[in-house]
Amino acid sequence: MGLFSKDIETFEDLFLHQLQDVYYAENQITKALPKMIDKATDPALKAGFETHLRETEGQIERLEQVFSMIGEQAKGATCPAIEGIIKEANEVAGDIADKAVLDAALIASAQAVEHYEITRYGTLIAWAKQLGRSDCIDLLQATLDEEYATDDKLTSMATSKDNARAAAAEPA
Amino acid sequence: MGLFSKDIETFEDLFLHQLQDVYYAENQITKALPKMIDKATDPALKAGFETHLRETEGQIERLEQVFSMIGEQAKGATCPAIEGIIKEANEVAGDIADKAVLDAALIASAQAVEHYEITRYGTLIAWAKQLGRSDCIDLLQATLDEEYATDDKLTSMATSKDNARAAAAEPA
Repeated sequence: MGLFSKDIETFEDLFLHQLQDVYYAENQITKALPKMIDKATDPALKAGFETHLRETEGQIERLEQVFSMIGEQAKGATCPAIEGIIKEANEVAGDIADKAVLDAALIASAQAVEHYEITRYGTLIAWAKQLGRSDCIDLLQATLDEEYATDDKLTSMATSKDNARAAAAEPA
Repeated sequence: MGLFSKDIETFEDLFLHQLQDVYYAENQITKALPKMIDKATDPALKAGFETHLRETEGQIERLEQVFSMIGEQAKGATCPAIEGIIKEANEVAGDIADKAVLDAALIASAQAVEHYEITRYGTLIAWAKQLGRSDCIDLLQATLDEEYATDDKLTSMATSKDNARAAAAEPA
């Protein structure tokens, strides 16, 4: 288990807790993505999720490097936020029979995950700067850049053929 | 209760479910913000949360107008994502004694809430376009613009005096 929130006293503790939160979240995402790959019907979306799964594995390694830089062991702290986001993704996608509507729902769920990561890495970078841990920033920024790029790709998919297809679909 | 996820068959159903999800989320946010106002110690942060509470009430009214435009009654659908984000915010802020560290944690939590709203309104706008519901877009876009502005203000706070204060604070 990571740092309990009751143990947060200093700004360094807060940074460590956030790092553990994101580490837990990234690990949950690697478990959620294979299910999203299975469900996605559009080959481009499926391929996009596969790419993001490999990226997420690299992001976990970067977090492990940051833990090492600050002299801490890599540990996760349970993150109710990502659990809620993934639970909602599963609930919504769970029973959609229409393939195009299902793909649209999966894209929206993936964007909710991306935005959670964007906000948390943005926070970690701001805090690392203020703690004078510029050595950690490049690693965190590399991941943040990937998250923005993934979100942009998902936005392109959400506004293009997949959803036009879903909007044109006959009711089941 | 709003539309159950098992009732999602068409793209219109998906749009309605997402609208109900965001409506539930905004209402949960109006309950969470007064607690964040109470906890915040920096007067600028407290004032920022108060402004956002009033904005959120306006955003709920806009959602009610969108429900009306599509001929539906305004209803919420339980949103595990916002519940998780708020639960995490309460857990982290719950026991921090140092005022500056607490404010930094509150800013980060508020940004997680903003990013959830940003992704959901972005999705609703993309879907409204594809459903040919351009009448709904202006209302949704007005709220999305407010969410981005609030997130920008929070980023300014996260990278300025509050956190510098927290980073300089003595361990408790």
